[in-house]
Amino acid sequence: MALPKPLELVQVFLKQAVRSGDRVVDATLGNGYDCAFLADLVGPSGKVIGFDVQQQAIDRTRERLADRADRSELILAGHESIAEYVEPGVSAIVYNLGYLPGADKDKTTSADTTLRALSASTGLLKNGGLLSIMCYVGHPGGMEEGCAVKDWAAELPRTEWRVFQYTAVNAPNNPPFLIIIEKL
Amino acid sequence: MALPKPLELVQVFLKQAVRSGDRVVDATLGNGYDCAFLADLVGPSGKVIGFDVQQQAIDRTRERLADRADRSELILAGHESIAEYVEPGVSAIVYNLGYLPGADKDKTTSADTTLRALSASTGLLKNGGLLSIMCYVGHPGGMEEGCAVKDWAAELPRTEWRVFQYTAVNAPNNPPFLIIIEKL
Repeated sequence: MALPKPLELVQVFLKQAVRSGDRVVDATLGNGYDCAFLADLVGPSGKVIGFDVQQQAIDRTRERLADRADRSELILAGHESIAEYVEPGVSAIVYNLGYLPGADKDKTTSADTTLRALSASTGLLKNGGLLSIMCYVGHPGGMEEGCAVKDWAAELPRTEWRVFQYTAVNAPNNPPFLIIIEKL
Repeated sequence: MALPKPLELVQVFLKQAVRSGDRVVDATLGNGYDCAFLADLVGPSGKVIGFDVQQQAIDRTRERLADRADRSELILAGHESIAEYVEPGVSAIVYNLGYLPGADKDKTTSADTTLRALSASTGLLKNGGLLSIMCYVGHPGGMEEGCAVKDWAAELPRTEWRVFQYTAVNAPNNPPFLIIIEKL
């Protein structure tokens, strides 16, 4: 037995919510791990639509996807423009906030664009779909962004949305936390 | 898909951690739901040791256990005396704080005895074992007790313990939260 870390608990929930053939979104491609995980969940008949502002992230993701790349659509754009590219009815939208690991740490997501992207995301999920946000709060600006995300999520009307937070309690140095949201 | 409530997530984790034949503890019998769930997990060769300060709780639990009662030992005593009754090596210890539903709401667990019980509990878990605490914080004294539990758990050394919190974010009126602890 090992209790899941926040990032592992996301995968437990995504496995329940995403079916073969679904359309899903990776809103922060980064090194492509989430995108590859999602590509396996949706299978050959599904589609992962991915966003990142850095070409490096698009390239790394395409490399990681390898022969699964044909079930992906990788877009070099900020996730705040998600509604321009994604038709409503997706079963999951996944955010990993912060900076691209192994790249320029000054290039981070920011509360302003993240909140605009999240608001747009709520209009794209189908009923029973999940909106998952991993908040990394150890870098400059990270805590402000994480708190802004939590405050935003706390205001979602509970007749339409269920929202939970999963956090490490005895870890040092502001560990990341998960905000997970289900559309009813 | 439905995201689990805190009480449901406990069961997901307990199913992973508890095996047939194990000894486990229900530290707050209440109406016996947890005890019955645990009795099913440990099976005919296992044992659930249960505590409650109210005879009503012992009676209700025995009734709910029905033909599983022979794999239980129900003790009319406060959980702060847990170490007097339980040999080390249990795979799970489960707390549901607050008052007995449907009974006298003035009879609640309290921060003082709860913290003594939790400290004693840490000495009884085997490696890989879980200590689960559902904190109900809507009644008088509940928030103080819940915060005390969280503060206590945050101090557990991370070389020996992993601690996570799972909380509803957009629910009204101080919803219950889960503190879940794994002994490494």
